[in-house]
Amino acid sequence: MITLASDFGSPYPAAMKGVIRTRSDAELIDVAHDFPRQDVRTAAFWLREVLPYFPPATHLVVVDPGVGTDRAALVVRARDHLLVGPDNGVLLPAARRLAGESTVEPYRWRYDDPGSATFHGRDVFAPAAAAVHDAGIDTFRALDPVTSIDSTVDCRFPTAEVRTDHAEGEVLVVDDFGNVVTNVPGDVLDGAGTVAVDGERIPIVASYAHVDTGERVVTVGSHGNVELAVNRGRGDEAFEVAPGDPVTIGWH
Amino acid sequence: MITLASDFGSPYPAAMKGVIRTRSDAELIDVAHDFPRQDVRTAAFWLREVLPYFPPATHLVVVDPGVGTDRAALVVRARDHLLVGPDNGVLLPAARRLAGESTVEPYRWRYDDPGSATFHGRDVFAPAAAAVHDAGIDTFRALDPVTSIDSTVDCRFPTAEVRTDHAEGEVLVVDDFGNVVTNVPGDVLDGAGTVAVDGERIPIVASYAHVDTGERVVTVGSHGNVELAVNRGRGDEAFEVAPGDPVTIGWH
Amino acid sequence: MITLASDFGSPYPAAMKGVIRTRSDAELIDVAHDFPRQDVRTAAFWLREVLPYFPPATHLVVVDPGVGTDRAALVVRARDHLLVGPDNGVLLPAARRLAGESTVEPYRWRYDDPGSATFHGRDVFAPAAAAVHDAGIDTFRALDPVTSIDSTVDCRFPTAEVRTDHAEGEVLVVDDFGNVVTNVPGDVLDGAGTVAVDGERIPIVASYAHVDTGERVVTVGSHGNVELAVNRGRGDEAFEVAPGDPVTIGWH
Repeated sequence: MITLASDFGSPYPAAMKGVIRTRSDAELIDVAHDFPRQDVRTAAFWLREVLPYFPPATHLVVVDPGVGTDRAALVVRARDHLLVGPDNGVLLPAARRLAGESTVEPYRWRYDDPGSATFHGRDVFAPAAAAVHDAGIDTFRALDPVTSIDSTVDCRFPTAEVRTDHAEGEVLVVDDFGNVVTNVPGDVLDGAGTVAVDGERIPIVASYAHVDTGERVVTVGSHGNVELAVNRGRGDEAFEVAPGDPVTIGWH
Repeated sequence: MITLASDFGSPYPAAMKGVIRTRSDAELIDVAHDFPRQDVRTAAFWLREVLPYFPPATHLVVVDPGVGTDRAALVVRARDHLLVGPDNGVLLPAARRLAGESTVEPYRWRYDDPGSATFHGRDVFAPAAAAVHDAGIDTFRALDPVTSIDSTVDCRFPTAEVRTDHAEGEVLVVDDFGNVVTNVPGDVLDGAGTVAVDGERIPIVASYAHVDTGERVVTVGSHGNVELAVNRGRGDEAFEVAPGDPVTIGWH
Repeated sequence: MITLASDFGSPYPAAMKGVIRTRSDAELIDVAHDFPRQDVRTAAFWLREVLPYFPPATHLVVVDPGVGTDRAALVVRARDHLLVGPDNGVLLPAARRLAGESTVEPYRWRYDDPGSATFHGRDVFAPAAAAVHDAGIDTFRALDPVTSIDSTVDCRFPTAEVRTDHAEGEVLVVDDFGNVVTNVPGDVLDGAGTVAVDGERIPIVASYAHVDTGERVVTVGSHGNVELAVNRGRGDEAFEVAPGDPVTIGWH
């Protein structure tokens, strides 16, 4: 199986699928093609959260603001998963999550004559994903010189500062419902009676419909982080926050 | 085959696909993941219109504003189709249409330890869809206690009041073209010479391009209902109506 | 394999997939369903650029503003590809590109009792695509009378006028990144030292990240045409152009 993820919108992902299908019979499953344009960190977050739900697969990921520059190309082995994409950090959070206790093994590889300078998803990464899927990473390394590397471009999410009665965190992403995912670990709220967001008391609930329509809530979301939400509404609008904004979560 | 439908946007549906693929080799086909958020009625309408075009399949449907509350989970058998989703009415209009003359058989089932309180699509319904697809509803019932139920949460669309020379109806949905689908049965216009919408005379045509670009029309749409549309434009904007609005269709 | 392309948005494409799956086990791959509504030219452009990356396939294309009128239906053979859709030009640029040196063979065919007047994608073209995919165009012609035709509705893109030191072209499409694809052939810029867009000097680069964030660039895009873009921004907004607008590219 090859999964595909990009910020390409439409119809560019179809070109990648055609390229793969000329080379491989792998099943193709879309993860997303509407990641915010050129936003490596947001894509890295979602891939870390979603890819672990897949069985062993090759994951083609192209969020690539440096396309056509000298940024390297990577294949990363994470246990029985392979990730293929640019060396800009987008692969590594997911790779670490997939690897668990195992070692993440990134490999740089060279490509010659990419065909285009602006669409390496089609001309570089899709052929590579088909190759490593069908023939394995070892054959791929023999075909295209690859050297193990010590350092690649990484992507690390900011860590919330957790104190006795509050955490100073940050908004990581806002999902399509408007739910605000922070980097504050959900377990800080274990046993909390009251919760405050930026000083304002907000009910903490297991899920949205435990309050009236339009009311704001704090939940521990499906990623295990503290989330700010609104029952049948958008948390980002009600809390007036966007990715990167600081957020203070207090509890008693 | 398992079809998938939700209001999840992106990339949450991919997590459901990964979960299914770890359990089942079923073909996966997306119906839609952009249903209006938390809008059970609109999703129910589209599923009723689209699912009958599929061969026998398991249909995973997650539009679930009550996620994490005590709302029940359903598997519904409708002839040779199975529908899996929350007990909030979203499954039943499609199930009735799929069942035709046969009986709709809904089953409630219990789930323990859902994993998350806010993403039952991934943690509850996707595993259930994989299970009933691969092993059948009878095995599923043995594995997870299921009791036949007399009443589930239903979803009924309002019926237009059809009189001698007019019908008082309602806008059910607006499609992505802006075509306005009413609940007025198309056959009321059989043989009609002139048609009026809220008192204003509008040409009735078989399809849009029978009038000039930008002109408003009344058609009997592909759902068999009276639709308000604009040739190469948006009917909802031209008629200034939205889902739920009343509409009076007159004829002579 | 059957690829699907339309301007249907969601969820109408799922009805086409169901219809195909009741008739055929062909693999289904989406090209795009968000082509601008009723915009035959833009769809024709993207299909020409994307379909050639696919292995031999049947391509179902429904951008069909004339649905329900007497516009004809086509099956077009282009080497080992088949294209199925309305006779409005949307198929022909892709067919010519797919055919290469070979002849494009379009066939008109009759359909009776289309089921609906407004959704021929579901009721006419999807069944036809399944039929020609599974049984071949020759059987299809036997089942439904087809006569070779001399003239079909065509779609031709405007040609840029290339002079000694400048080209007068037009914006063909804007992609989802905001990159502005013109009809000026990229090779006019071979060896150019400086480039001007509508008289204003703009750096020419191989790809976007060769300039600072937010800066405008001229590139030769992945379609081989001159493109106007912004590093990590939208070219259409920065250059204030839209499809159909004239653009003058000068060089020295």
